[in-house]
Amino acid sequence: MAKLQDLARLVEGHVVGDGSVEVCRVAPIDTARSGDLTFLSNPKYRSQLTVTEATAVIVPPGIEVDGKTTLVCANPYLAFAKILTHLQGPQFPEIGVSSQAHVADSVCCGDSVSIHPGCVVGENVIIGDGTVLLPGVVIYDNVRIGKNCILHANAVVREGSRLGDRVILQPSAVIGSDGFGFAPDGSSYYKIPQVGIVVLEDDVEIGSCACIDRAALGETRIARGTKLDNMVHIAHNVQIGEDTVITAQVGIAGSSKVGNHCTFGGQSAVAGHVTMGDNITIGGKGGVTNNLKTEDAPQVLSGFPAINHREWLKAAMTFGHLPEMRKKINQLEKTLAQLQLEIEEK
Amino acid sequence: MAKLQDLARLVEGHVVGDGSVEVCRVAPIDTARSGDLTFLSNPKYRSQLTVTEATAVIVPPGIEVDGKTTLVCANPYLAFAKILTHLQGPQFPEIGVSSQAHVADSVCCGDSVSIHPGCVVGENVIIGDGTVLLPGVVIYDNVRIGKNCILHANAVVREGSRLGDRVILQPSAVIGSDGFGFAPDGSSYYKIPQVGIVVLEDDVEIGSCACIDRAALGETRIARGTKLDNMVHIAHNVQIGEDTVITAQVGIAGSSKVGNHCTFGGQSAVAGHVTMGDNITIGGKGGVTNNLKTEDAPQVLSGFPAINHREWLKAAMTFGHLPEMRKKINQLEKTLAQLQLEIEEK
Amino acid sequence: MAKLQDLARLVEGHVVGDGSVEVCRVAPIDTARSGDLTFLSNPKYRSQLTVTEATAVIVPPGIEVDGKTTLVCANPYLAFAKILTHLQGPQFPEIGVSSQAHVADSVCCGDSVSIHPGCVVGENVIIGDGTVLLPGVVIYDNVRIGKNCILHANAVVREGSRLGDRVILQPSAVIGSDGFGFAPDGSSYYKIPQVGIVVLEDDVEIGSCACIDRAALGETRIARGTKLDNMVHIAHNVQIGEDTVITAQVGIAGSSKVGNHCTFGGQSAVAGHVTMGDNITIGGKGGVTNNLKTEDAPQVLSGFPAINHREWLKAAMTFGHLPEMRKKINQLEKTLAQLQLEIEEK
Repeated sequence: MAKLQDLARLVEGHVVGDGSVEVCRVAPIDTARSGDLTFLSNPKYRSQLTVTEATAVIVPPGIEVDGKTTLVCANPYLAFAKILTHLQGPQFPEIGVSSQAHVADSVCCGDSVSIHPGCVVGENVIIGDGTVLLPGVVIYDNVRIGKNCILHANAVVREGSRLGDRVILQPSAVIGSDGFGFAPDGSSYYKIPQVGIVVLEDDVEIGSCACIDRAALGETRIARGTKLDNMVHIAHNVQIGEDTVITAQVGIAGSSKVGNHCTFGGQSAVAGHVTMGDNITIGGKGGVTNNLKTEDAPQVLSGFPAINHREWLKAAMTFGHLPEMRKKINQLEKTLAQLQLEIEEK
Repeated sequence: MAKLQDLARLVEGHVVGDGSVEVCRVAPIDTARSGDLTFLSNPKYRSQLTVTEATAVIVPPGIEVDGKTTLVCANPYLAFAKILTHLQGPQFPEIGVSSQAHVADSVCCGDSVSIHPGCVVGENVIIGDGTVLLPGVVIYDNVRIGKNCILHANAVVREGSRLGDRVILQPSAVIGSDGFGFAPDGSSYYKIPQVGIVVLEDDVEIGSCACIDRAALGETRIARGTKLDNMVHIAHNVQIGEDTVITAQVGIAGSSKVGNHCTFGGQSAVAGHVTMGDNITIGGKGGVTNNLKTEDAPQVLSGFPAINHREWLKAAMTFGHLPEMRKKINQLEKTLAQLQLEIEEK
Repeated sequence: MAKLQDLARLVEGHVVGDGSVEVCRVAPIDTARSGDLTFLSNPKYRSQLTVTEATAVIVPPGIEVDGKTTLVCANPYLAFAKILTHLQGPQFPEIGVSSQAHVADSVCCGDSVSIHPGCVVGENVIIGDGTVLLPGVVIYDNVRIGKNCILHANAVVREGSRLGDRVILQPSAVIGSDGFGFAPDGSSYYKIPQVGIVVLEDDVEIGSCACIDRAALGETRIARGTKLDNMVHIAHNVQIGEDTVITAQVGIAGSSKVGNHCTFGGQSAVAGHVTMGDNITIGGKGGVTNNLKTEDAPQVLSGFPAINHREWLKAAMTFGHLPEMRKKINQLEKTLAQLQLEIEEK
């Protein structure tokens, strides 16, 4: 429960109507009931404002709703997220170190750390204040984990990895698995030991079953604020910049570098040893095979190999006409040959 | 060991030959030995019937085999599956709640529940009769699991998820991980709490390392009888209908709706906020980007963006001719221009 | 620490310079310091040899470096891998069977086996000498594991699977999950019990969150020396040959056969019931839908459906020109029709 005027302060907005009303939940505009707070982030749903049962609505400036209390702020979607976080409170109660976890004596834990049953934490691990290890998490030796991280159930962090503050690992995420490196030895392959590490900087989130491979030598690094969705594959020695968003099932091959503020659509990919600049967006299923420099304007690419998105879209729309085009070309050749013959005969 | 006549009753078929013979195993037609039951689902393998060592063969009506006992039934493949299930018996012996599992006091278990060592089950979880949790399964708080479910090793079910009866999770499946939702906050991203849940209805099966994200608000729902293969990604707020089959490495993006009896080939995908009707098949690697309505006849689509499968196939077969086509077009332009010139000169 | 002359013996090379110098680490040529050994595998980086601070350099025959001690051998990359392995030493100290692991009484362990806390090992499992099970590994009943295997944290091996010697499973790899098999039963699906097994031969490596499904009947088999990267999906009854390399997020559908010494680029796929010969390379995102025979020379295919790689590359480069080509064809048709008209009128 929170008073609307307190929530307004939280999100740097102001209340139009009675700021003392209390809300207990945030709900979508079409299912909100009395006591709920809802939000209008897309003006096209404005007509729903008059019928929603919600007690109050978060709106952008310039939207007035007769007989409805509104919380006006510049970015309603962000305000919704912040209020939701506030109302949710701490996700996992502090439980300390469970007697049913297996924590090496040399582990160094900060204040308010929670280690749930079934976790295994190796030698010389450092865990920062307020960090939570949900059940079944395995931390190998010599890992450093920052403050207020959440490592969900069955996540694995292998030896020597370094996680910053507020890092979130979804369930079964794997940090620091061996890079895929083999030296040909006659007709077989000899495994190249992967002795580098993984560094996840502050505010990085890694999705379920996503896998970040350790470097062969040196580091695989994901910079501050970058978010990875489920089943993303990051190969050894990859470097990813800040605030980059990588959606599900994307793969980035070995030693590639991705800039800041890039966005990857689902199932897209980057080949090995490629360098991409900042502010580049790769469409779903796209595949980057060449270095990409940042232009002044943000760049969007699609297709495989990835080309300018608009060009790709036009080409993709034409793709279904290929057989008809081929037929026409053959027909044109015949017609033209015949015409040439006619002219020669004249 | 089972008598053929008893198996015939089980599958609503009848025996031609000696129904009292006993079989102990089901085996493929080319490796079956004496004592085995085999099956003919595809008539093109009919010639193998005469050489198989199997004691008896499941056949469709109208197939006679000299000197071989047959079990005749309408759907031999289904009969084979049912007999295999019968001969296999219960897969996991009932073991009760292991003293080496960590089960909260508030957990409510039905009859004949098995919880293996290394499982962790949170507060207020309800587990139905006959359900089995294999080792290392982690269940967060407030989860409801129906009857006769099998949750394989290291599967994770996050808070508030609801599983129906006879749900199967393969190893390391993840149910209820956070949806991938972030609100832009200047140049960074602010995590949107994902406070919705996941609902898996009766008879749903989820493959290994498949990930079903919880809704931002509301539900992510997979309806009765739908089967997901390994490493399928289902994003937040997705709704999937009944008896839909989704093969490995498919991704369905946020808030999309998929109908009943749909089929997805490997590595295919659906973009966000798309609605697909019933009885639609998407070919391997296909990508759906627009709403698809069910037509009277079943629909098959392929390619990215997905188009009619036959058209796509023809276009895909023409794809390799693109350079030759381009050359021909340029040649035609030249020839035509020259011809125009010749005519003008005449 | 190792003397260079001893390392030379290990890799069948020889030292030019002082063989008694000691090195303690292998480092990349641009970051190597005094005390480090570095390597030159690609002659294009030769200029860096004069500036590197490394104590010694592994080089191929014919490369001389003024004032620098060199270890000359035929295959510097392989030598680098072998020396790295030697300097690394055993990765995981022998710890025996942890009292915090849950190991059935019927398990048969060889010498020097390590079973870490939180592992669960089922009935009648056989584990060979020197094998290591990291924390959280779950082994179902009747599994056989060879010598000197490493099973990383939270890997799962289901019932009856057989692993050869020196097999490596990265974290959360899943071996022996159910194949995806269902018999249509009216409008629903009936699960076909998957009663076959998985066999991983000697020296196989399986990446993080990769899933190898058990056979319906019979075996799914991955032959000696084959390496799978993260999140690879191998369906039921697949057979993969020796020394084949399958990079991340590849999917091989049911009952397909892949030969020896094949290579798969990231996110490529093989459809079900396809047979591929030896020495075939499939490019990233490629999809094999037909049987492929080995030719005398190694074969490279790309695209979906996969075609000769060079042809695909040319066609892919032409793809963006499709709209322009279509426009030209339409223009040609018009121009030609007009020309025909003109000629007729003459």
